[in-house]
Amino acid sequence: MTGTLTEKILSRASGKTVSPGDVIEAKTDIVAFHDLTGYHVIEVMEKANMMKIFDKTKIVVAFDHLAPPPDVRSAEIQGNIRKFVKEMRLPNFHDINVGILHELLIEQYALPGQVIVAADSHTTTSGAVGAFAQGMGASDVAAAVITGKTWLVVPQPFKVTLKGNPGKWINGKDVALELLGKFKADYFNGMSIEVHVENPKAFPMDYRATVSNMGIEMNADALMFVPDVETKDYIKTMRGKEVELVTPDPGAKYLDEHTIELDKLEPLVAAPYSVDNVKTAREESKVPVDQVYIGSCTNGRLSDFRIASEILKGKKVKTRCIAIPSSYTMFKQAMEMGYIEDLVNAGCVVTYGTCGPCLGGHFGVAGPGEVIVSTSSRNFRGRMGSNEAKVYLSGPSVAAASAATGYITDPRDVQ
Amino acid sequence: MTGTLTEKILSRASGKTVSPGDVIEAKTDIVAFHDLTGYHVIEVMEKANMMKIFDKTKIVVAFDHLAPPPDVRSAEIQGNIRKFVKEMRLPNFHDINVGILHELLIEQYALPGQVIVAADSHTTTSGAVGAFAQGMGASDVAAAVITGKTWLVVPQPFKVTLKGNPGKWINGKDVALELLGKFKADYFNGMSIEVHVENPKAFPMDYRATVSNMGIEMNADALMFVPDVETKDYIKTMRGKEVELVTPDPGAKYLDEHTIELDKLEPLVAAPYSVDNVKTAREESKVPVDQVYIGSCTNGRLSDFRIASEILKGKKVKTRCIAIPSSYTMFKQAMEMGYIEDLVNAGCVVTYGTCGPCLGGHFGVAGPGEVIVSTSSRNFRGRMGSNEAKVYLSGPSVAAASAATGYITDPRDVQ
Repeated sequence: MTGTLTEKILSRASGKTVSPGDVIEAKTDIVAFHDLTGYHVIEVMEKANMMKIFDKTKIVVAFDHLAPPPDVRSAEIQGNIRKFVKEMRLPNFHDINVGILHELLIEQYALPGQVIVAADSHTTTSGAVGAFAQGMGASDVAAAVITGKTWLVVPQPFKVTLKGNPGKWINGKDVALELLGKFKADYFNGMSIEVHVENPKAFPMDYRATVSNMGIEMNADALMFVPDVETKDYIKTMRGKEVELVTPDPGAKYLDEHTIELDKLEPLVAAPYSVDNVKTAREESKVPVDQVYIGSCTNGRLSDFRIASEILKGKKVKTRCIAIPSSYTMFKQAMEMGYIEDLVNAGCVVTYGTCGPCLGGHFGVAGPGEVIVSTSSRNFRGRMGSNEAKVYLSGPSVAAASAATGYITDPRDVQ
Repeated sequence: MTGTLTEKILSRASGKTVSPGDVIEAKTDIVAFHDLTGYHVIEVMEKANMMKIFDKTKIVVAFDHLAPPPDVRSAEIQGNIRKFVKEMRLPNFHDINVGILHELLIEQYALPGQVIVAADSHTTTSGAVGAFAQGMGASDVAAAVITGKTWLVVPQPFKVTLKGNPGKWINGKDVALELLGKFKADYFNGMSIEVHVENPKAFPMDYRATVSNMGIEMNADALMFVPDVETKDYIKTMRGKEVELVTPDPGAKYLDEHTIELDKLEPLVAAPYSVDNVKTAREESKVPVDQVYIGSCTNGRLSDFRIASEILKGKKVKTRCIAIPSSYTMFKQAMEMGYIEDLVNAGCVVTYGTCGPCLGGHFGVAGPGEVIVSTSSRNFRGRMGSNEAKVYLSGPSVAAASAATGYITDPRDVQ
């Protein structure tokens, strides 16, 4: 065999040897939806009069986008999904107090080599553990819920190698922004990115999740980290479970490849209004900031809050700062490590497990004329609220440093 | 002198000896507004072309109703108020990360004997420290902001005496509900209630704040606790400040009076859809609960979270539970005492300093058909969201006990 990770996963899932460009029917290992899309998934099932589920244990439902609900309509939608979950007796349901779907998938469900489809574009996040994970529309997800299958075009594989060790303030976001700045947002259309980490422990699961999450911003079909000892250790730590690693074969052929030298990266931002409008944080250091958001399925994990607390401990924020660990587990761990206390003492507003302001849903929606520094994934016009707001995307170190100074700030420049 | 507390405060504030029924012009010691009403206050000032302020140090502004903002309109309103605060150089401004206005007033500003007006009905809360505090509409508050004066009808004084010691699970809410159940919601129209606590330390400031807060639900013009050693100690602890106590004269004449024997109270609830539809928690123990809310300017203080954590520690909630300390300070203290950790471990969603679901604003809005147990102040149809939701009001012990069991529960019945 000389298959890429993509080929090996999709060959297993379709029961035949596949090559890039093939249209295949793949078995799905996990099918998932959240409050905002779940409503439509159920609607499609109802309209098709096919209220059946291929395997209840393989469906994951989480309330995250509008949790706790900011209006009656959201509460009503959640009520309807709860009813569906109860009637169908779905075991893997996570109400408003558990976490963001993509975070729960990597914490509890996703495994190397799986095919995962979910009704949300950031489903690519589960690529962090080496799953082929893709976001789909409600109709496709409804079909997968019913049949346990989905159709896919086998993408062209692209290899990224991460070399060396990232500097203290560099994390997954800087790698994602580096790729976006270099290749731009459309480049990886029709491709799956396979990331090989030369020094697995130097680029831990939290960082990988951020990069995989941003895979969809690169327009990739999937962004997978080749499973390694870090994958094994992460799943063992989180679930007490030993896993088999699925890896590409040594002679696997890629369309192209690119190497990033981690120790050469600078703290980056994506300036308005595009994820690929990438600059160094220092280039934007004159920009005053109205609000900072640390959280989301992109950067709401323990290491993000460790970094933020390291910068903000003992300081007072100079701008509004909203800090939302992406799950109950992340909040608990951050609380136990004292990070939540550090952030609250610095004046951050905290809660957990909600997408919150990322999509302009609630809990810190951007007003007209405001400048937001956000660790989330998108900064197009209106994404976080007003069309007249400006969103800069960054990792947690730039976000926390900006909260500390009130301007976009490279963490190396904070006193 | 034989004046009541009401007469003594309003005589000082108006510069003449007043009696019930007098229409007076009183000097205001504090004038306040929040995000939701502040917009209208400023609009009135602008339309009147009177952008001046009688004394900047006496204006208090806090963002609480829609903080952090759940939509663009709220963000825009807050942005406009921030601009006003900056232009006017108001020193007492509290952004989204500080707390609910009424909580901040008793923590930091209100003093015995003051006249306080604010653009929110629950301004009565500051009666807890012995201030004559009344909610008013935006026009009246705008006039007070400009002139430092307001007009009032001197209310008829009514005396309530609290005797004995409350049982372990009884707090201010049960006293408020006892008064509402007995006298009904309209009885105290045109009156000010003066509460004399026989054993000051048995009924601490947190409890008093709840009763004063609910004064407006009784339709009282004000509900003041006669300042005593607890008032002195509270202000000393919170602000390091010694205060002069203003108290009624020994022979003060009241329209009527009523005594509550604290040790005879049972845990109470106000059933839908009125604050005076009061029952014991045990009478409603068959009612299943969808969501519990512990927080608000009514019951979001340290003792509320102490009680909730005592009941929920080591348990898992059987229904959704949202727990929101009413200010940064309350959250910090609750965090330092371990209460936040206990509540998060039990599965409660936490944040701080927002009114949140109390007014159906965001962060846990009630859906159709849902039953909510809430420590907030109002349960009329639609108050917390859907017109088809049912809200039971209770103190923190019944709320936490209901979260623990999934049914309306007397805390004495929790295993």
